[in-house]
Amino acid sequence: MALEIAVIGGGAGSFNLLSGLRGHEGLHLRSIVTMMDSGGDSGQLRDAFGVLPPGDLRRCLVALSEETHLLRELFSFRFEEGDLEGRNFGNLFFLALVRSLGSEKAAVEALGKILKIRGEVIPVTWDDAQLVARLADGAILRGEAAIDKRAPDREGPPPPIEAIWLEPMARANPVALDAIRESDAIVLAPGDVFTSLVPNLLVDGVAEAIGHARGKLVVAVNLMTKYGETWGWSASRHVEELTRRCAREPDLVLVHTGSLPDGRLGEYAREGASPVVDDLPVGGSGPEILRADVASRNPLIRHDPEATANALVARLREAHRSVA
Amino acid sequence: MALEIAVIGGGAGSFNLLSGLRGHEGLHLRSIVTMMDSGGDSGQLRDAFGVLPPGDLRRCLVALSEETHLLRELFSFRFEEGDLEGRNFGNLFFLALVRSLGSEKAAVEALGKILKIRGEVIPVTWDDAQLVARLADGAILRGEAAIDKRAPDREGPPPPIEAIWLEPMARANPVALDAIRESDAIVLAPGDVFTSLVPNLLVDGVAEAIGHARGKLVVAVNLMTKYGETWGWSASRHVEELTRRCAREPDLVLVHTGSLPDGRLGEYAREGASPVVDDLPVGGSGPEILRADVASRNPLIRHDPEATANALVARLREAHRSVA
Repeated sequence: MALEIAVIGGGAGSFNLLSGLRGHEGLHLRSIVTMMDSGGDSGQLRDAFGVLPPGDLRRCLVALSEETHLLRELFSFRFEEGDLEGRNFGNLFFLALVRSLGSEKAAVEALGKILKIRGEVIPVTWDDAQLVARLADGAILRGEAAIDKRAPDREGPPPPIEAIWLEPMARANPVALDAIRESDAIVLAPGDVFTSLVPNLLVDGVAEAIGHARGKLVVAVNLMTKYGETWGWSASRHVEELTRRCAREPDLVLVHTGSLPDGRLGEYAREGASPVVDDLPVGGSGPEILRADVASRNPLIRHDPEATANALVARLREAHRSVA
Repeated sequence: MALEIAVIGGGAGSFNLLSGLRGHEGLHLRSIVTMMDSGGDSGQLRDAFGVLPPGDLRRCLVALSEETHLLRELFSFRFEEGDLEGRNFGNLFFLALVRSLGSEKAAVEALGKILKIRGEVIPVTWDDAQLVARLADGAILRGEAAIDKRAPDREGPPPPIEAIWLEPMARANPVALDAIRESDAIVLAPGDVFTSLVPNLLVDGVAEAIGHARGKLVVAVNLMTKYGETWGWSASRHVEELTRRCAREPDLVLVHTGSLPDGRLGEYAREGASPVVDDLPVGGSGPEILRADVASRNPLIRHDPEATANALVARLREAHRSVA
C-alpha cells in the first residue's frame, strides 16, 4: 500500500523536498500550500486582478510535475522586457486558466493535469487573507512580502516577531484537512518559518487537524537562520515554535548533520543568516531525531532534494512497516 | 502511402481548412504560414519585442493540435484586464519559448510538440518583412494591418490594390520550399487574398517553387469578397490573380455551390462584402472545377471545416489513385 505523505509549506524548501519525493515509487504525495504571497508578480496578480497569488502553488506544481524539462522550466520563466518585465509565465498561465474556466479551483486542477503532476497540490485555503506580524518593538508589518523581505539594518538581533496572524481569518480548504487526516506522515517542510510554513498553520482548522491527526508529524529543520524571522534560532527553537503552534510534539525531527558548502557563508552572514545549530538531544524521551547529511553540494545552501527525500522516506517506510 | 498536402495561408480560412483536414487519416499535412502580421497583439510583439509576429502561426498550430480542448482554447485566450489587456496567451507562450530556447525556430518546434500537432506548421520565412501596397489612387499602405483593416468610407468601389510587395525582400524558409516540392497537392487556402495568401507568394522562391512543383495546385475560392482587397471579385477573378502570381494555372478549383446563411448578409454588405459569384466555366479545357456545398451552417459565413476537407480529400484521393 502506498505511503501517504502530506507536505506542508510553500517556498523553495517545499520545492526541493517535493522534487526529491517525486522520484520515489509507492508514495501518495499531497502538497498543502500557503496562499499568502504578497510580493513580486504573484502579489501583483492578487492586487491588480483579484486572483489568489499563485507563486507558491506554481512552485509546488512544478516540483511534482512529470512533464518535460522544457515545460517545467517555462513555468518558472520570467519576462524581462517592455511592459511584461517581471511577469512570470506560470502565473500568467494560472490567470488565463482562472478566466477561461471561471474558478481558481478549476484552474489548479487543470494545471495539475497539464503539468502531469504526481499526487496533488492543495491550496491551504481559497480565502483571500493577508499575513500580519507584530514585532517586539511594536511595529506592525502587513503582507507576506514585508515580513519576508526584512534586511539587516542594524548591528545585532532584529526585533523578533512577537505575534503573527491572518487578516481576515481564512477558512481551511476541506481537501487540505482531509489530506492531513488521512496521511501516514505530515511533513512540515523546510523553508521560511513565518512566511512559508506558519501561514498554513494560521488557517482556521489546520493546526487543530495536525494536532489530532493519526499520521506521524515530521519537522524538517532549516539549514540556515533567516534575519527577520528566525535570527539566532537553534534547531530546538525551531521545533519548539512548531510544537506550540500545532499543540503537538513532532514524532520525528530531521536535522542536517555534516558540513555546509562554505563558499557562500559570508554572503549569508551579510544578510544576517547563519547555520542552524543542532542542539537537539541525543536519545531521551522526546521526538525521534533523525540526523542525516541532507545539504546540497551545490554552492547555494539548500536541502538536496534526493538526500532529503531518501533520508525521510527510508525512516518513514521503516516505521510504517513496523506498525503494519 | 500518405497523401502529402501543403496548405498555404494564415488566417481564419486556413484555420478552418486545417481543422477539417486534421480529422482525416492517411494525410501528411504541412501548413505554410504567412509571418507578415502587423496588427493587434501579434504586431505589438513584433514591434516591442522584436520577435516574428506569431498570430497566424498560432492559429495554424491550434488547428492541427490534438491536445485537449482546454489547452487549444487557452492558446486563443485574450486577457481583458489591467496592463495585460489585449494580450494573447498563445503569443506570450511563443515569446517565453523564444526567450527560453533562444530562437524562433526552436520555439515553433517546441510549440508543435506541446500542442501535439498532426503534421507540421512551417513559417514561410524567418525574415522580418512588412507588407506594402500601392492603391490605384497612388496611396501607399504600409503593414498588413493597414491593408487588412480598410473599411468602406465611400459609395462604390474602393481604389483597388495595384501593386503589393515586401519590404525588405524576404527569403523563403527552405523547409517551406521542400514542403511545396514534395507534396501531392498544394492548396491555396481560403482567406484574405492580399493579407493572408499573397504574402506567402511574395516571399522569394515560393511562387517559383509552386510553379515548378509536381503536385496538383488547388485553389479554394473564398465565399465572400472583402472591401479593401477583393471588392466585386468573381470566382474567376480570384483564380486569375493566383494563376498570375504562381505563373501556373491551378489543376483544381474548389468553389462553393448552394446557399449561404443569409442572416448575416446585411452586416457583410455594410462592410462592403458580398458573396463571390461563381462565373467559372462548366466543362472546357481549363482547370477542373469542383463545386460543393462547403459553407458552414453557423451564422458566420465561413468554410465549414469538415465539408471543405471532405470535398477536397475525396477528390484528391481519387486523382492520387488514378495516377498510382
